[in-house]
Order: sequence, then structure tokens, then C-alpha cells
Amino acid sequence: MDFEPVGRRGQCNSDSSVLECAHQLGINIKSVCGSQGKCRSCKVKILDGKVSEPTLSEKEIFSEKECDQGWRLACKSYPLNDCKIYLPPESITAPQRTQTEGLEINILPEPVINSYKIAVNPPSFSDLRGDADRLLETLNLTHNISCNKIDIDVMRDLSPKLRTCNWKCNVLVRKDEIIGLSLSDRKLGFAVDLGTTKIAGYLVDLNSGKTIATKGIMNPQIGYGEDIISRITHAIQSPAEAARLKNLVVNSVNDLVGDLCSNIGAKADEIVDAVIVGNTAIHHLFLNLPVKQLAESPFIPAIINALDIKARDAGLQIAPGAFIHLLPNIAGFVGADHTAALLSIDAGNSEGVVLVIDIGTNTEISLIVNGKIVSASCASGPAFEGGHIKYGMRASGGAIEDILITNGEIQYQTIDGAAPVGICGSGILDALAQLYLAGVLDKSGRMSKDHPGVRSNGKYLEFVIVSEEERNGQEAIAVTQSDIRELQLAKSAIRTGIQLLLEAKGCTENDITQIIIAGAFGSYINVDSAVTVGLLPCLPVERFKQVGNAAGIGAKMALISSGKRLEAQNLASRTHYIELSTVPAFMHTFVQAGYLGLYRLSGGKRMEINKE
Amino acid sequence: MDFEPVGRRGQCNSDSSVLECAHQLGINIKSVCGSQGKCRSCKVKILDGKVSEPTLSEKEIFSEKECDQGWRLACKSYPLNDCKIYLPPESITAPQRTQTEGLEINILPEPVINSYKIAVNPPSFSDLRGDADRLLETLNLTHNISCNKIDIDVMRDLSPKLRTCNWKCNVLVRKDEIIGLSLSDRKLGFAVDLGTTKIAGYLVDLNSGKTIATKGIMNPQIGYGEDIISRITHAIQSPAEAARLKNLVVNSVNDLVGDLCSNIGAKADEIVDAVIVGNTAIHHLFLNLPVKQLAESPFIPAIINALDIKARDAGLQIAPGAFIHLLPNIAGFVGADHTAALLSIDAGNSEGVVLVIDIGTNTEISLIVNGKIVSASCASGPAFEGGHIKYGMRASGGAIEDILITNGEIQYQTIDGAAPVGICGSGILDALAQLYLAGVLDKSGRMSKDHPGVRSNGKYLEFVIVSEEERNGQEAIAVTQSDIRELQLAKSAIRTGIQLLLEAKGCTENDITQIIIAGAFGSYINVDSAVTVGLLPCLPVERFKQVGNAAGIGAKMALISSGKRLEAQNLASRTHYIELSTVPAFMHTFVQAGYLGLYRLSGGKRMEINKE
Repeated sequence: MDFEPVGRRGQCNSDSSVLECAHQLGINIKSVCGSQGKCRSCKVKILDGKVSEPTLSEKEIFSEKECDQGWRLACKSYPLNDCKIYLPPESITAPQRTQTEGLEINILPEPVINSYKIAVNPPSFSDLRGDADRLLETLNLTHNISCNKIDIDVMRDLSPKLRTCNWKCNVLVRKDEIIGLSLSDRKLGFAVDLGTTKIAGYLVDLNSGKTIATKGIMNPQIGYGEDIISRITHAIQSPAEAARLKNLVVNSVNDLVGDLCSNIGAKADEIVDAVIVGNTAIHHLFLNLPVKQLAESPFIPAIINALDIKARDAGLQIAPGAFIHLLPNIAGFVGADHTAALLSIDAGNSEGVVLVIDIGTNTEISLIVNGKIVSASCASGPAFEGGHIKYGMRASGGAIEDILITNGEIQYQTIDGAAPVGICGSGILDALAQLYLAGVLDKSGRMSKDHPGVRSNGKYLEFVIVSEEERNGQEAIAVTQSDIRELQLAKSAIRTGIQLLLEAKGCTENDITQIIIAGAFGSYINVDSAVTVGLLPCLPVERFKQVGNAAGIGAKMALISSGKRLEAQNLASRTHYIELSTVPAFMHTFVQAGYLGLYRLSGGKRMEINKE
Repeated sequence: MDFEPVGRRGQCNSDSSVLECAHQLGINIKSVCGSQGKCRSCKVKILDGKVSEPTLSEKEIFSEKECDQGWRLACKSYPLNDCKIYLPPESITAPQRTQTEGLEINILPEPVINSYKIAVNPPSFSDLRGDADRLLETLNLTHNISCNKIDIDVMRDLSPKLRTCNWKCNVLVRKDEIIGLSLSDRKLGFAVDLGTTKIAGYLVDLNSGKTIATKGIMNPQIGYGEDIISRITHAIQSPAEAARLKNLVVNSVNDLVGDLCSNIGAKADEIVDAVIVGNTAIHHLFLNLPVKQLAESPFIPAIINALDIKARDAGLQIAPGAFIHLLPNIAGFVGADHTAALLSIDAGNSEGVVLVIDIGTNTEISLIVNGKIVSASCASGPAFEGGHIKYGMRASGGAIEDILITNGEIQYQTIDGAAPVGICGSGILDALAQLYLAGVLDKSGRMSKDHPGVRSNGKYLEFVIVSEEERNGQEAIAVTQSDIRELQLAKSAIRTGIQLLLEAKGCTENDITQIIIAGAFGSYINVDSAVTVGLLPCLPVERFKQVGNAAGIGAKMALISSGKRLEAQNLASRTHYIELSTVPAFMHTFVQAGYLGLYRLSGGKRMEINKE
């Protein structure tokens, strides 16, 4: 058996299902309904080899197209020979997911840094040229190029280095400047996605374009507020506080670089190029750019266009002469991370009507219609990340990540299979959908106090997911009426954004040919749940695509290829940003988009859909 | 009366000589012979107005050509009406000399930094461009230029600055980069000559090209050795020691910038451009470039060519986005300061055979023949700066700066007229010449123990300049036999350098049409003395020209004009450096050049000249 993209191979017991095989090999595939074939949580795709015929329940759960593509439930498929099986990120339990973020990108490496081998004539009384002058002249003559400067930090090490390497080395050139000398052929690049919550770093071999190390860490600025506005508010108190926030993230990124390098036995100064993406505020805070104007109407970034600066001018400790490239922002609240996501899905060449959405505290949405892009930002708040939710928590051990309610019976899956301690984002979304489907909530989101699972604790109604008894006397884990209201506000903001962009381009939901869901949260949600609660439009399941950390992938693409950097700048430049709060239909739409259930929106009106 | 270039004007008593007028106005013109008309120390040039007819003694002292040009002795000329009088640097006593270093340069300002007035449309919901993008687009559109980047430090201040100035300001542009925003029309530049001993700084108005403040300070690296080799030896001990030497000079230069600015009520960040010159070693130490290879044969600089780097990358605190330009070096021991001197005298367009010499611990010499330049470096040692001389000292209060011996009577002049405490460079050279002329020394430099002024202190012979009695019992100030030997070595090294350069170009001393003496020491020496001791070739007096701090003037020219920077690079590139120690005739010539008196050298042979 061969499970991809996690790259786990091994022999399994015969008569085991694919799910059991995976567990035998140490892969935690989800199984919310307990292998009853009732949910889609264990879905996998058979890439190669033969498995048992689809069961009836699978034929119900998957569309014909999905069946043809090889989608199966892992709990109901039995391998008949050696199989190669694809595990989508949403089928793997959270702690193993970062492994999937290293997905290789199949683009031709076209690095910004070129490496040239040279052998320099040593100086003598008949050739008294300076070391730097000698190096430049030899390089240009040997390789017929027009390099005309050497980074000052490289020059500070040049004379001893040339003598140590006996006047033979590789010269690293960026445009017209020598940014390093190297004795090895290895050229490393570093891409980083600076998220509000999480920072994902990638070490890439610039010769092959392959990712060779990946690591995610928390953004330490979180101590100054979980959301961006709190951090901006803090930063504008004084230059010293702005510098403090900058140093926090810069130091973390330097540590991350160190960890990634030590993983592969490399040194930080082998990193000769870097690409950084992040939302506009984090981008600004990282560079110590002013943010006051970003928080005040009309929310203007200090800079939108792509930026190349010396790594040292940002405090990043990589090769002394290296630059960092920051992908372009789009607007005050649609940042370079979104540009990177657009790049990663080849938005410039997409056909039809494509919606790209990255759900978070701030949700960025782009609509691409015949290659033309409109973008918006929705203040969706932290509910879908577990914030402002009574028993909400981050995706870590013991978090309920999936919920299924069948005939009043509640089933759930926790991360690591640990005893439940709270509910993380995808679980909260499931809860909202399942409570609606079970009739606990009506369309308006009101909790029915008559439902057997609902109880009042005196102050408010709540629906118990894990009771006190199950938790051996500890406080029950429940979903409260006010949690529901928070979630409705969040999902309304997002659905409104989608709708207003559609209307700006004269489209309807049905016109959408693909919805690409990017980002940490969106990648692991149950799309059915998102549709059920009216967060996303009701469209055939095959039109949805969950692409993982698209921002990170886009950053890696820009790291590997100078052409992709131009493409990203081009994408950002031609993206038209719409400030939703200035659209007249905003309030009407927002109110309608708060309802649960399946419906279409049009001109601020809601039309119910009855499924099947 | 109007004394230039010090710019002192005022009414003087009638019947006063020019010398007395100067003293009445607070200018210390030298007067070694005590107004007897016996020496040239008080020479001045009448630029305008009428003075008494030349006396017989003046007609003896000055050549006919000099008389025609208006040269007079200040002690023997009496103004007949309001006169304008030029004071050459060598006629003014040391502490007032720095005033003369601010000589204005008459070249057209052609600054590297251009300033553009703009008015930017403020952002609105219908124009959401980023601040940096908006600024660049407006600038390019308004002025039809192609600026494409903004320095990151400028960007860090851009958003609040644009809002404070209500979107109207001057944009400072260097090539394709915005390096500053300014609300005033003033644009300041900073030029600095980093000497081994002294650092001379100039604040220049880049719009007019005028020098507006000047200051000289000591180079604090002197604590790590008076000569360059000691400092290199120290720097190569460890990177920390190299950094220490760098920081010493960088901090001093920053202090100097601060002082110059506060003199004119400016701020350091109004300085938008800087030019730095210095000898190769000091240039390297300032930039923290490696120096080990500079001290080992074949003495290779880390870089020879001109260099532009961000001021912050050298630790220089001027405008955040500003660059510094370092003029090109010529070789390991002929540095950017010599290039600047060549630039200041317009060496590229000189006619005839021109010798340029900057005397110091290391003496740089260039010979320009029909626009072709050869250069050499002579290890002349510190004797002419007072080093290794028993009673030697720097040019400060109480230093004997001029000596005259007439019929056994010793006359001298001290700086500030203070009681004598030692002998500085020009005094030492005078002593050597006067002792030779008085017969105390023979041609070989041997002190005659029979001469009445010579005494033995038991160990060695010495000639007393100021006796114990004159010093009220303090130790006498004397010139010793070993002082004479040091001076002979120094002057021999220099004369040898001159001779070998002449021979390299197939010239003789008589072919020299002009000897330009540059630098702190050379500017204030008595040229007669230099010729008398055989330090300089015996040529008509009008062929000598003392030009003051030519390196500083060249630095200012490069600061004011981008064309001059190109010219400097061009001058350095076409200068052929000759390593004297590799020339076969070196030793022969060196031995002959040690003799005192008037002679010509040719092919390692010496031919005596009998003057008159």
C-alpha cells in the first residue's frame, strides 16, 4: 500500500479496509460515523490498483462523476492488490495535515538567482587589480554577462574567501549584482506565509524547485491580540511598540529559518533568496511600515506593489547579500497572501467563473470572470477559528473536529482521538449544520427549547455535544444560542461578500464553475456543512475544491520562478478591489445571508432551495 | 582692507603694513624673520588696490614673474588705498588654516540627487492605491521620469509624512529610486576626507555647490597606531577588533556630521548625499572591508573601483535613504584621497609634465605626462609629521613651525606665538635646510661637532634651537643627529619615487612644468627648504604650487557633480601604478637621493647643481 501525498508505504493485513490499512501504517484517517458508511469523512481516491466494488452507501454519498474519478469511502473499500491511494487533506486528522503542505509544484525552476562557476587569476605585481574588480571582470568575461556591483556584505568577506577557495568558486548573481560566493552547488530558497495566527515556512532547493523542509509555528504577535486590528492599535501607540511587534515576528522567522536549516544540515547563509507573503497588516508589521492609515477609512496600505529589499533591511538573517521579495498586496485588507493564492491556482489563465475564498478572521474573496478579477474583504470575525465561541478552541489534541447527528445520536471525532476538550473550527461548522438538519435550529438560527438535546442553564439555551457524565463530571461541551449568533454573523459576512462580487460582475451563483477554498480553516471544513448552513452557495459538490495552504504554494512558486513574480504583480495590478461597505445592497444582503439552509441570493432577496 | 579667502574685512590704522593690518584684524600672518624682509614667510598677493612700491629685499626674494603677479611681503608693503589681499595657506599660522580649506569650487552643480516638487491626490474609496504606489505614479507622471523604487527606510516614514505635508512635498530622487521626501528646498551634501591622522568634513549646499560648514577632527583610530600598518595589524587580529576600528571612525564621522549640522541649524537627515575619500587602508577600515591582503605582498585592495552603498550599510547617520559614494582607489597604497587630489587639479586635462605629490607617513606621487598618469607610493615614514623626531610634535600651539638661521642667529616662529614646546613638520624641514645652509650639516647629513651651535649630550650630537635658558631651565629643544638620519630616509624615499616615475615616462626633472604639492603637511612647508634639502627637485619657484587639502576639494567636487564622479573613476582607471620596490634602479636611486643640497638625479646618479 502507498498512501500519498504523505508518502507512507507498507504491507497491511489482508481483509483490512483501506481505513484499517491506513491506521496500521500510522495515518489517522478520520472516521466520524465509526465506519458505518454514513459520512464522507474518510473519503479517499484510488490512484492505482484494484479495490472492492462500491457499496450502495458509497453510490449514495458520491456523485457519478466522483465515482468515476475513483473517490471511495476508506471504511467501505477493501484492497484487492497493492494500491496507491490519495488522501485529501480534509480526510486526515489535524496534526498530520502539515505534511500535506509540502505538495510539490510542477513548474519549471526559473530562479532569480543565477549561479556561475569561475576561476579567477590570482593577483601578482603584474596584475594588481582589487579583489572585487578582478572578480567582476572575470565573471563578465567568462560568462558574457554584465554584472556591475557586489553587495557590500559580500565584499566584506570576499578577499579571504577568494584566497581560501583558491580563486575558484560559484558566484551567485541577482540581476546585475553579486549577492554571494559559494563553494557548493546547492542554492536554497526560503518561502514564508505570515499568517495572523500561524507562520508556515518552506525551504526549497532552487535548482530543482523541490521543497526540502517545511515547518509551521505560531505567530508570536498573538500576544498583542488575536486579530489584526488589536495589533495595529498596539503598533501605532509608539515607534517602540511597532518595533516590538516587528521584532517578535522577525525573530520568530529567523528561528524558523534556523530550524528548517538544521533539519537538513544546512546553514542559514546558504539561503540566497526569499519570498514573503502575508495579509497586508502583517506584511506591514513585518517590514515596520506604518499601519495607522491602514486602520482608518479608506484603509490605505503603505505599499501595494511587489517589493524587493535586502534581507538585512528587514532583519532577516539569510545569505548576507540576499534580497527578499514580497508579493504585491491588493488592498488594505486583501494582502499578498491572497495574491499568492491567486497565483497558485493560475488565476490568470482560469476559465469560466471561479470563486477563490480564504476564510479566516478576515475572509478574502476573489471572483474571476474570464480572467478579470474582483476582490473583497469580509470582516468575518474569529468564530470559525474558535474565537468568541464558548467551547471553541484551536485545532489541537482533544478538539472535536467533526460532528454527526443521526436520529438524535451524536457522533464526533477528536483530533488525536483524545478525550474531547472543546470544539475547533471545522467541528463548529459541522455543529451548526447538524443542529440545523436535526431541527434543533430553525432557519433564523433560533434554538428550539423543546428539542430533547436542548437545555437551559438558566441564562441561555444550549445544545450538549459531550455531557458532564461523558466527561466524568467535568463541565459539558455544548453549543450555545449565542455561539449560533456569532456563527451566523460570520457566515453572513462571507456569503454577502460572495454575493456582492457576483452582482458586481453581473453573475449569479449558478454561473460559478468552481469554488476554490484556500487557507488553513477552509481546507479542512466539511463542504457539505458549509453549504447546509448557507455559508457557501448551494452548488454541485464537484464544483468545490479545497486546495490547502494556497498562499504558501504561491509563495513557493514565486520563489522558484521569476516569471511567477511578474505574473503575481500582474494579477494584483489587474484585480479590482471592492469595498463592500460602500455597496448599496450591502445591508439588505447581509440580513438575508444570515439565514441557515439552502437558498440563493439575488438583489438582496433570498430564494429557498429544496434539495432533491 | 579685505583679506581672502578667510573673508576678513575691516578698517586698519593708516601707516600700517599689510602684516600689521592683518594682525589688527585678528589674522595671524607668519613673520619668521620679525618683519626684516629676510624670509618669504609673510608673502601675500595683492588682488586689488594700491600698495607701496616693492623694496629691494622683495625684488631679491621674488622672481620677476612673481612680482608681476602681485606677490609681496606683507611686512614691507603699505596699503595706499582699500586693498583686497590674497593670503596663501602657507602664510597663515596653523590654527587658522582650516578656514582656508573651505575654498569654493567653481564647477557647475550637477548633483546626483534630483529634487522634484509634487502634489499627490489624496486617497479615497474611488482611489485606493497604496501610498508608495501613488507617490511613484504621480512623480513619474508629473515630471515625465521613470523612477521605480522607494528606499525601504523612506517608505517606513512615507504614510504619515504625506499626510502631515498635506500631500505636497519635494521628492528626492537618485537614479531610479526615491531616497527621501523633503518639505524644504534645501539639499545638503557631506564630503569627508578620512586621513590617517585627521578627518576633514565639509557640509555643502547641493543646489549652489557652496561649502557652508567645515570642520577638522582627529582620527580616533590613532589610539591603535599612528601609521596604517599598525592599524591593519590590529584589525586582522579578529573581526571584533576590525569592527572596533570601524566603529571608532564611523562614530567620529557621525559626530562630525552632527557638529557641522548644528553649526548651521540643520539636521543630519537633511544630508541626502555623501562622498568619502581616504587612503586605501582607511577606506577599507571605514567600510569594514578585509585588510589582511592589503598588508601582504602584492598588497591588493578588496576593491579599487568607485563604490556606491547605502549610508546605513556603513553606519553613517544621514538621510535614511541616502547613499555614500566612495571615490575609486588606485592601488593598495594610493587611495581614493589621491584620486580626489587628481580630480581637484583637473589632472585629466593637464598639459605638459605635472607632478602631484601628497607628503605624509605614506607619500603618494603621480606624474601626468600628456594626460597619461603613473603613480607610486613611498614609505616616507612619520618624520615629516613629527614622528620619530626627538622634539617632534603635531602642528598645535607652541610648535615651532618656521626656522631661520642668519649668521648663526636662530629665529623661529611658533604656532599661536606661544612659548616653544617642540617642532612640527614644516619647522623640522626648515631646520634641516637651515642647518645644511649654515654648514652645520654636510651633504651626507653628518653634523659637524666643530660648529658652535652643535653640542654632544654624551650619546649623540645635537643642534640647539631653543636653549635651556630660553626655556627657563626646561630641557632644550634641539635637532639631533639621529633626527637628521630619519629625515634623510624620509626625503630620500620621496625623491626616489619622483625620480623613478620620471624615468618610467622617459622624462627628466627639467621636463616638469608643474609640481603640485597637496595635503596637510605639503601645503604649509617652505618650498625653498624642500628644494634646499633635495626633497624636491631644484626647479624655478613658479613651477611649484601648494594647493591645500586637494583630497577634500576633490571630494567636494565629486559630491557636487555626477560628471566629476565619472571623471574620477576614469582618472583612477587610467592611472598606471608602479610598485617602486620592484624597479631595478630603486636601491641606487634611494642611496643617492639621501644626500642634502641641490642636485639632479638620473639613472641612479647624482649631479650637483650650484645655485647662482
